[in-house]
Amino acid sequence: MITSPDNQKLKEIRKLARSRKRSDLFIAEGEDLVDVAWEAEYVLRAGVDVEEKLLADASTLGSGTRVIGVYRERWSEPGGHLSVWLDGIKDPGNIGTIIRSAHALCDGPVIIGPRCADPFGPKAVRASMGSIFARPPARAAAAELPGTRLALVRDAPRTVRELELHGPVVVMVGGEREGLGPDALNAAHVRARIPIRDEGPDSLNAAMAATVALYELGHRIAPDG
Amino acid sequence: MITSPDNQKLKEIRKLARSRKRSDLFIAEGEDLVDVAWEAEYVLRAGVDVEEKLLADASTLGSGTRVIGVYRERWSEPGGHLSVWLDGIKDPGNIGTIIRSAHALCDGPVIIGPRCADPFGPKAVRASMGSIFARPPARAAAAELPGTRLALVRDAPRTVRELELHGPVVVMVGGEREGLGPDALNAAHVRARIPIRDEGPDSLNAAMAATVALYELGHRIAPDG
Repeated sequence: MITSPDNQKLKEIRKLARSRKRSDLFIAEGEDLVDVAWEAEYVLRAGVDVEEKLLADASTLGSGTRVIGVYRERWSEPGGHLSVWLDGIKDPGNIGTIIRSAHALCDGPVIIGPRCADPFGPKAVRASMGSIFARPPARAAAAELPGTRLALVRDAPRTVRELELHGPVVVMVGGEREGLGPDALNAAHVRARIPIRDEGPDSLNAAMAATVALYELGHRIAPDG
Repeated sequence: MITSPDNQKLKEIRKLARSRKRSDLFIAEGEDLVDVAWEAEYVLRAGVDVEEKLLADASTLGSGTRVIGVYRERWSEPGGHLSVWLDGIKDPGNIGTIIRSAHALCDGPVIIGPRCADPFGPKAVRASMGSIFARPPARAAAAELPGTRLALVRDAPRTVRELELHGPVVVMVGGEREGLGPDALNAAHVRARIPIRDEGPDSLNAAMAATVALYELGHRIAPDG
């Protein structure tokens, strides 16, 4: 049983909870995540491997944390009939939520583009609700994306509902303020928008836009299972 | 110019940032929100009405906060051709995001049911990106909801895509773990699920599920504008 905050594993967990720079390790906190994770480097359980308070102090969740696992990153390759590529999505909760939605709605991975939050950061892993383990993210620049590149653009004349597409398709989603960058727009083959009411807001949350596009295209493009 | 942390307005803002219990006032932080808000009780701008550091200390956003407005709650009545009712949605970010999605995708308000986070809390207001001002939430119990009550239920035999509905419709969305409570299920007229891949996660994030349902039903039920 670890009883000192100076323990090397606790030190490492505290560091990974703050910032993952220059590390390919990451943490998953809580039973729900650890239960569905891949093989851990190590797992610390409160009251079993480490004093409860010491684990809580190392956690980003605070008191009540029962277990933290430390894992090594895994990445997929871009692929699948339908996938999603992210450009400048800086909110880690949105990244994790999109990983969960893609796991639910399409057969390809979430592909991380430039200026995105870390998909293996604690908030993103938690928002993925474990889908990051079932479907690890991929990395690619816009010009490397396979298949038909569909840019979600606010003022595109056509809606995603009106598109006739044949797979494979990659949905390109930009940050809520800036939208897709010039490299992304140059690399895109098709543009479409999510239809929003005239009196509505300027845009949907980026995770909502990605999820709606995957929902709309998923039953048309990606075969089930 | 306010130069003391003991100023009554700053005290009130700090209190509202922590907890809104027994108050019908709430705060909106940042230019984007204050610009689209309704009439304020008062607004404090950094460097104009109050010292920059004092405003930052009172804010839930910390340094860089330029403006905080204090507003009085407003509530709508349930209504519209299509709206959404929430049961046990405890994450304020999800509440705010659903308020934004409803503003984008349907003509009725978000109706707050039992065991939900405060829609006027700082995180919910921020996640709404101002839609809470354009479309204030309503409050109702399940049995009071007007029109056809459509319960989103994970294992319903039919999908939202397969439904034939005529407005007005209220989509009932439960928390991710517990789902809809017994009162909600008893009051529902129809049940449907969001189609999820067999190999996918157990469920979508509650805000994603609500958004997909509103997207799917919105163009069929709610007239635009």
